[in-house]
Order: sequence, then C-alpha cells, then structure tokens
Amino acid sequence: MRSPTPQVVRDPSLPEAVTIWEVGPRDGLQNESVTVPLEVKAELVGRLVASGLPVVEATSFVHPRWVPQLADAAELVARLAADGLLAGETPLPVLVPNERGLDRALRAGVTHVAVFLSATETFARRNLNRGLDEQYAMADPVVTRAKAAGLHVRAYLSMCFGDPWEGDVPVDQVVTAGRRLLAMGADQLSLGDTIGVGTVGHVSALLRAFAEGGTAPGELAMHFHDTYSQALANTVAAMHAGVTTFDASAGGLGGCPYAHSATGNLATEDLVWLLDGLGVHTGVDLAAVVDTSSWLAGHLGRPSPSRVVRALAD
Amino acid sequence: MRSPTPQVVRDPSLPEAVTIWEVGPRDGLQNESVTVPLEVKAELVGRLVASGLPVVEATSFVHPRWVPQLADAAELVARLAADGLLAGETPLPVLVPNERGLDRALRAGVTHVAVFLSATETFARRNLNRGLDEQYAMADPVVTRAKAAGLHVRAYLSMCFGDPWEGDVPVDQVVTAGRRLLAMGADQLSLGDTIGVGTVGHVSALLRAFAEGGTAPGELAMHFHDTYSQALANTVAAMHAGVTTFDASAGGLGGCPYAHSATGNLATEDLVWLLDGLGVHTGVDLAAVVDTSSWLAGHLGRPSPSRVVRALAD
Repeated sequence: MRSPTPQVVRDPSLPEAVTIWEVGPRDGLQNESVTVPLEVKAELVGRLVASGLPVVEATSFVHPRWVPQLADAAELVARLAADGLLAGETPLPVLVPNERGLDRALRAGVTHVAVFLSATETFARRNLNRGLDEQYAMADPVVTRAKAAGLHVRAYLSMCFGDPWEGDVPVDQVVTAGRRLLAMGADQLSLGDTIGVGTVGHVSALLRAFAEGGTAPGELAMHFHDTYSQALANTVAAMHAGVTTFDASAGGLGGCPYAHSATGNLATEDLVWLLDGLGVHTGVDLAAVVDTSSWLAGHLGRPSPSRVVRALAD
Repeated sequence: MRSPTPQVVRDPSLPEAVTIWEVGPRDGLQNESVTVPLEVKAELVGRLVASGLPVVEATSFVHPRWVPQLADAAELVARLAADGLLAGETPLPVLVPNERGLDRALRAGVTHVAVFLSATETFARRNLNRGLDEQYAMADPVVTRAKAAGLHVRAYLSMCFGDPWEGDVPVDQVVTAGRRLLAMGADQLSLGDTIGVGTVGHVSALLRAFAEGGTAPGELAMHFHDTYSQALANTVAAMHAGVTTFDASAGGLGGCPYAHSATGNLATEDLVWLLDGLGVHTGVDLAAVVDTSSWLAGHLGRPSPSRVVRALAD
C-alpha cells in the first residue's frame, strides 16, 4: 500500500499560502503535566524550525508559580541563542504576561513577544486576576515599550467564541476588545476559541464583524481548539474570510486525549494535511512534524491526540 | 461552569435541515473486534432511534465468514421486529452484498436495503473479489429486484477520494461509477471517503462534477471518515454544494482510537455539534447519543474516539 497523502485539489477562492504559527512549545507544554527537561524543549524547538514551520513560539516569561513547566524560560532562550536559533530566520516569540516578563524577554534578546488577554470579564478575573479594564492597563505599557524596543508584538485574545462561566460571548464584545488591542499597537491579533465551542457560522460572523469594523484579515490570526472536532472546518471558514495565519500545536500538544478537560489545541499535522490537500503553501514538511510529535510523545508517556499523527506515525 | 454548547449562528447559505444516516450498528460494529451480544445490538438500535436519528442502518446480511460480528443479522432483525422497531417511523436499512443477502432481507421484512460497490478496480477485487464490471453485474439484479419489491435502495460507493493501493482516484471515474448505480435504479448514492484522505477542495470538485453530469445533490449522501480530521470540514463543503444527507457512526464506532489503522467513521456526536452550532435541524438529541456511545464503550472496553463524547461524557 502507498503511504497516504491527500489528493491535491486547489480551491481558487482560498489563499495560496498560509502561515502556521506553531505554539506547541509554549501553549502546548504549559498544559502538559509531565515535566519536560530543558534539553528536550530545546530539541523540540530546533526540530520544529527544521521542519519548516515559519514561526515557533518558544516559551513564556510567566511567573513559575503559575506555570512550573515553563520555569526554565530564560535558560531555554539562552540555549536557543547558543544554538544559533534565536538569531535565525524563524522568529521564536515568547509570551510576556506583564512588564516584568517583558524585562526578562528584552534581557534575553528576543525579537517577538506576545501578550495574553481575555474577551470576557470572568476569564480575565479567573486567569489574570484582573477585570477587563485592568487587563488593558496591564497590557498597554507592555505593548508600548515592546514596540519602542523594535519588537514584533502579537496579542492573544481568549474566549472569543464562548466562555465556560458566561456561556455565549457576543461578537461585538470580541470585536471591541480586539480592536482595542490593535489600537494599542499590537502587530497581530490572535483570536482564541479557548474552549473549542465555535462552529463555522460563528467564525464567519465574527470575521465579518471585524471587517466591518475596519480590521484587515491580515492583522488577524485564528487560534482554534479541536475539543469538539471543529477546528479544521473553522479554519476553512476563516480562510474564506481572508485570514492567512493559523495557530497550531505539534501533535496537538497540550490536549490530553483521555481527559474530559482536554484543552485540545489544533494539531499542526491535521492542519498541514488540510492545507497540503488544498495546495495551500505552508513550507512545512508533514513527515518531519509527525516524527517530532512521535518522539515527544515518548517523553510525555502517551500517544499524540492528533489523528494524522496516529494514522501516519511508524 | 455551564455545560458547554455551541453558540448558534446560522449561515444562510447552508441547508435548514440535514438527515443523519446513522451507520454505527452496521458499518461501525463490523469493524469492531470485540463481539457484541445480540441484546446489546438491539438495545443500541433502539437507543439510537429514541435519540431522534432519522435512519439507523441496523446490520448486514453478509456471509458470516466475512463479518463474524454481524452473523446474527437475521436474529437481530427479528428482534427489532418483535420490539416494534422494524415497522416504526424510523427506517432501519440493512446491507445486502448480493442476491442471497437480498433474499434474507426480504424474508426478514426489511423496507430499506443498501448495496456496496467500489469506485476502484483494486478495492473491488480485494473487498468484493470481483472486477469493476463484475461488481455491477452482481449489484444490478439486487437493485432491480429490491425496487420491484418496493424497497428503498441505497448504493454505497467506496474509495471515492483515494485508494490505499491506487493512490489518487480521478473525479471522472467516481462520477461514472456513481451515475451507473443511480441509473440502475438506486434511490440514493452514498459517496465514501473510505480511507479519509479527502479534503474540502476535492469534495467541492467531486460534487461539482456530479452536478455537471446531471445528478441532483438530493440523490447523494456523503460518507466521510475522520482518519485525518477532515470529516467536518468536508461536511461543510458538501452542504455548500447542496448535499443534505450525511452518514455518521455513534461515538465514531468502528474506528479504534489507538490503532494506526483506525478506519475512523465520522462520529455522529461531532457532526451533531457542528449542525447544532449552525442551527441546522437534525432532530437528534446530542446528549442522548453521547449517553448511548458511553454505554456502548463500556461493552467494547475502550473509550469512544469521538472528541465530543470525550468532552461531554460524564
């Protein structure tokens, strides 16, 4: 039998190329309970870069009390610099939750940073320990100082399609929050379906509302979770709306395949399979990412939740 | 926290209602290695009917040598008749591989039958032990006699999006095969992505070719497998092309979540989540199907591969 590949059939209404923003080492690992050693993290980032991923978010300068898995952020960035990766062609963004995190990132010599906010009051209070207005007050100096230092700044906006406490999240509320972050100076806004409840009509409606508000699709990225298997359908809807940057996590890292509470990042491999089938250029070597996810699954002691990894892994 | 549900956002370009053709008891179980007792099968069909599924394919009158799991087909149909389900409002089709199977189905008093053919020569020879022309010769009297007996006849066409031995399958070849089955008298043609390799551009191209050949989308059903996570994206593409009947298997029955070779029927629950989010009417009670899949997973001794089941099950 042949090794399966999708039959390539272009859809001329879709973009010719897409940027996959790999978040596995940061967003994936921060949700994994097994502690991953520094050397493995450095090798993971190196492998992902080598597989052709155009952006690899490396870690987070969050306080170690909140995310013990990423307590070695400074050491990891130093190691990536020593390996020649930090000054390489592939940006390696780091998350900076506040000015203290930004100070650490600046000292480490990173070129791309990301801030993280919530579209809903409840999640802002629970995750950031701040109300909606306070979170902007915290983010504003981070974005301003990062831009002044010449860095690329991405803003994550979470709970854009539903909130586990508030339920439905109005589209207008998300557009207002997102445009405020862009007005603050963020270069890119990543809209997160943090609990994975969004479906295609909702994606189209949200992106239409952003367009009507004057936001170009090139300023947006979509961050889908596959908790309810909707991530790829949602990706196609977003591409139809002109979005060309999509977040994904190698092997679906960060989502436990057995737990009810699986956060379920979209797996990079599942996304690449879709885009390969559509003839949409990504520059990513699917087999290389599958190899990396299988290798990392060994360190995590469990199989990948990605269907493509499970189907293709040796 | 609230029990998660998708926020309902209609897409006016999509159909208002969709028929889910439940194939779990037949296509799902025939790929499960754990033998399921007759009483459990009967309860499964009853539960699926009670959950609002409009069609539940119950079993196959295939020779027990090929599918030992379904060796009790006649007993199961008799039991469903005794339970009052066979004459109920919900059709319970059975697969009939040949005239001998049709004879058994007619004796059992079923009202809906299905035949199964391949779009590719290699799979026809490997699965049916016949070449392409011979498979039509086998199907023709089955369809003709079933129609003469007043039955509804569905024709499955497998390997429509790729073949594990032949690789790519040309769209024209699928259209020619499918139209031949409709011309034979089949009421409905179910186009199967048996190995799950199809992506959305391919789905659109195939359905466009059927439309150009004169086939109305109402004559078609799509049978997607989620082996590479593409099934729901493909479903949306097919709805955009006017298709309103979709095959699915409760809990993703038939696809082992751990094996490389997972055949990966699209899970009914994942499909219902999508359609609920789009406000597309199905008549299906999602929670009831999730309960049924969880109950059956106990009999199979393993969790469901459906992401929705894993996220929602108690």
